Amino acid sequence: MTDTEKVLNEHKSRKGKYEIVSTVPINTRDELSTFYTPGVAEVSRYISGDKRGVYDYTTKGNMIAIVSDGTRVLGLGNVGPEAGLPVMEGKAILFKKFGGVDAVPLCISVHDESEIIKFVTAIAPTFGAINIEDIESPKSFRIVDALSKTLDIPVFHDDQQGTGVVVLAALLNSLRLAEKKKDARIVINGAGSAGVGIVRLLVHAGLRNLVVLDSSGIIYRGRKENMNEFKEEIANTTNQEARSGALEDAVTGADVLIGVSKAGAFGSGLIATMNQKPIVFAMANPDPEIGYVEARDAGAFIAATGRSDTPNQVNNLLAFPSIMRGLLDARARRINYELLEGASKAIAKLAGKELSREKILPDVLDKKAAIKVATSVSVAVSEAAVRTGVAAIQKDPKEIRKQVAERINRYWRVERKILR
Amino acid sequence: MTDTEKVLNEHKSRKGKYEIVSTVPINTRDELSTFYTPGVAEVSRYISGDKRGVYDYTTKGNMIAIVSDGTRVLGLGNVGPEAGLPVMEGKAILFKKFGGVDAVPLCISVHDESEIIKFVTAIAPTFGAINIEDIESPKSFRIVDALSKTLDIPVFHDDQQGTGVVVLAALLNSLRLAEKKKDARIVINGAGSAGVGIVRLLVHAGLRNLVVLDSSGIIYRGRKENMNEFKEEIANTTNQEARSGALEDAVTGADVLIGVSKAGAFGSGLIATMNQKPIVFAMANPDPEIGYVEARDAGAFIAATGRSDTPNQVNNLLAFPSIMRGLLDARARRINYELLEGASKAIAKLAGKELSREKILPDVLDKKAAIKVATSVSVAVSEAAVRTGVAAIQKDPKEIRKQVAERINRYWRVERKILR
Repeated sequence: MTDTEKVLNEHKSRKGKYEIVSTVPINTRDELSTFYTPGVAEVSRYISGDKRGVYDYTTKGNMIAIVSDGTRVLGLGNVGPEAGLPVMEGKAILFKKFGGVDAVPLCISVHDESEIIKFVTAIAPTFGAINIEDIESPKSFRIVDALSKTLDIPVFHDDQQGTGVVVLAALLNSLRLAEKKKDARIVINGAGSAGVGIVRLLVHAGLRNLVVLDSSGIIYRGRKENMNEFKEEIANTTNQEARSGALEDAVTGADVLIGVSKAGAFGSGLIATMNQKPIVFAMANPDPEIGYVEARDAGAFIAATGRSDTPNQVNNLLAFPSIMRGLLDARARRINYELLEGASKAIAKLAGKELSREKILPDVLDKKAAIKVATSVSVAVSEAAVRTGVAAIQKDPKEIRKQVAERINRYWRVERKILR
Repeated sequence: MTDTEKVLNEHKSRKGKYEIVSTVPINTRDELSTFYTPGVAEVSRYISGDKRGVYDYTTKGNMIAIVSDGTRVLGLGNVGPEAGLPVMEGKAILFKKFGGVDAVPLCISVHDESEIIKFVTAIAPTFGAINIEDIESPKSFRIVDALSKTLDIPVFHDDQQGTGVVVLAALLNSLRLAEKKKDARIVINGAGSAGVGIVRLLVHAGLRNLVVLDSSGIIYRGRKENMNEFKEEIANTTNQEARSGALEDAVTGADVLIGVSKAGAFGSGLIATMNQKPIVFAMANPDPEIGYVEARDAGAFIAATGRSDTPNQVNNLLAFPSIMRGLLDARARRINYELLEGASKAIAKLAGKELSREKILPDVLDKKAAIKVATSVSVAVSEAAVRTGVAAIQKDPKEIRKQVAERINRYWRVERKILR
């Protein structure tokens, strides 16, 4: 059986990856009257009198929607909403498993920017947050930016913000190991969702010696060809000297090279032209711009990819469940870069004593690690949300830690029982 | 503690009534690669090549959306989407518990007819069926009728169709007990969603000696005041003699009186004017047009209400989970009256040997009864779907029975483990 056959079989035998289960018993007429008619009318009446009650009496406070129109699914491109569904289902169960967040995949058949904005606005009452996923850029940016202005729940864009957070976390640790400073020269190859997200967060975090490239080369102020409003933003916030040129021009002498572009984009010769102790993150999925081993052999002081079969996997799994946990715990009204930077620093810190060139990020796959990441990031996000005035509630960090740990522990226990 | 306080407390301590759980293990890197990236890309690729594959490889085939704009929630009226959410959550867990159907509540902030149609069309790729709920009529009818013409998944309207099915089931058994025939004279008080749904199904089932009333009195061909397209439909399909008048005029000499109107609408004097062995269904919620005991005392041969604290509860719970089970099992493309009549007959038959004036419908609250109802209705719906050419798949009835029983048994087992 090939890997493809195995994956298809595993999916087919289960017909999807999530299900809905009740959190309340309905075994007697009394329970039916409490949780359904006529009793539930009292809850409706209460919420109609005080809309904030929806957070106390319904699932809203821990329920998010994963919204995708299927126009940019993984590396596959525009495969449509049906073909996007298995990916969003996978994402949904990761939100639950690693963040204790309930997530509903909603793959939609409307693709127009304003229609997607209308759609998300329509479902906002039901959800505590929205995760925008695998929508082609720059449309996805415009959607996220527009919704963030109008909705009173946070709109998270994992392709942009999640990737930004985990890259910044990896970068903070890498710079530390290489004894480089915030003025390190950083080249980012790729100006799609991930590229723009990384630039925005790095700039916020004070890492401003940046040069960004797209398929037309270095992006600079005044460039005419192949621009859009987000590349204009990049041109205005990076590349202070307004240099132009190709990848080789940008990389020569650089300290850091981050790829969010495509397989094989970095040759080993390219890395040889970098400054001492070069840091190379090759994040293209599933095949990186340059492999981990190849990059190290070419002289990379630190190499990282998106792959799980070599060291230093820079994986959003460290970011999206835990950030969302924090957003919900603080009942944040919106996301800002202060909050994302807090998440990055919390993740970076968790590498702890094991921090080394072969381990720039913490693990997440076991329960202890998952709880550590989720609690630390939730506390960091909550604190940043309170500090920047976007939190609707403020909890003691100890309480957050306790609740997050309980939530994830409970779910792993439940899941073990169900899947047994 | 009052009942209201109890209901609010029970809801608050649980913060909503459902959660998302995984049906697949993600404990190792291999499992992560199978159910998420990079493996899941193979599933996306497959579905993008053959869209029907979405039924085999994702949750779509057993996942429905419960869509409400909160404009007509229970007897509360237009309380908004947030206040509708606790009701839809209750409905969701009943779909699972009694039909093995996964249901996601989507309470939306758009109320315009065409916007709701657009919304449901947008989410259709994700779901195997749609349940329209607690949207004010006649808007709800226009939405359901429009969507039924354009979508390739069934759009169920419980307020209309579910109520129709369970009323017809109760009526078939009541007529049998009273030894009345299909030409029995039937009065329906109320021309909202439930009223129209009952009329449509009764007419289809050959029960055509009908008179329907709204707040302006008997609906008849040529009436001018307080009409809409659905009351025109009623005027054209009922009341052959085009009689006009008030409730008393309609009820005198009638065999059956069905109330889908409001508390206290039927006095005991009214029932005394009916034909011998009168049948009275007083379905207003939570307080009926006339209580069960009062109706029996006033001479009703058979009395029924929507309440659980007296005999003969005519409750949609018998209909919506099991009909939806059937729709999904047949992968029905749309709903028709043949299919709904099949469901009614299956439910009526299940009263079995216990059929009596005090028990005109089967129970549903225990597991055995739930499985009986779900299997019988699913088979009936599937057969009708195949017969009328709306089924995408045709299974052996034995196979359906086995699968439905396994599905419900499994879920009750899972729920017991989770709630323990």
